[in-house]
Amino acid sequence: MYFCDVENRESKELAPGVHAKTFWQEKMLLSVVDLSPNAVVPMHSHPHEQCGTVIFGEVTFTIGDETKVCKPGDTYIIPGGVAHEAIAGDMPTQVLDVFSPVREALKY
Amino acid sequence: MYFCDVENRESKELAPGVHAKTFWQEKMLLSVVDLSPNAVVPMHSHPHEQCGTVIFGEVTFTIGDETKVCKPGDTYIIPGGVAHEAIAGDMPTQVLDVFSPVREALKY
Repeated sequence: MYFCDVENRESKELAPGVHAKTFWQEKMLLSVVDLSPNAVVPMHSHPHEQCGTVIFGEVTFTIGDETKVCKPGDTYIIPGGVAHEAIAGDMPTQVLDVFSPVREALKY
Repeated sequence: MYFCDVENRESKELAPGVHAKTFWQEKMLLSVVDLSPNAVVPMHSHPHEQCGTVIFGEVTFTIGDETKVCKPGDTYIIPGGVAHEAIAGDMPTQVLDVFSPVREALKY
């Protein structure tokens, strides 16, 4: 199954109003994240690199000392260890995040 | 610069009508790929894992022996060494691909 069956994948709550569905191989873990309007992923960091894009909706990302309102197709890449935060806009929002190495905590 | 400045990044032609703009850290390389209508990325493989999504437009992906017409937000993950092909739909199309390890040939 190379195409991610998002519809049938169980979701995991990462924060209030933030639900992820994950898929992985050996080097990367892909996370399709649904955020309720105005949901917040609080500032945090991890040793894994992270990159991704907004699929629909809008997210205000703060990465290190940079902040940007990201819309569909806007992309970002976060080195390991750099703190970041995400705040959804006033609408249902979906983001694709990719981590390397695989985040073991998101293999569920 | 954690947010990818796609607008100002020089592009690299991967195949006729297929142009990539790439960004990278240590473990992942992110490639924003514009495909002209009906452009083809011929069947190929590489040892790097690849995952991604469609940003806008439509792509018919064949990965191994699976084929799917992918639309915005549809995601895929390709193990290293598995052959894959992409054919754009009848409209301008943009795809986000992520590779790990970094594909040196795409660091330009």
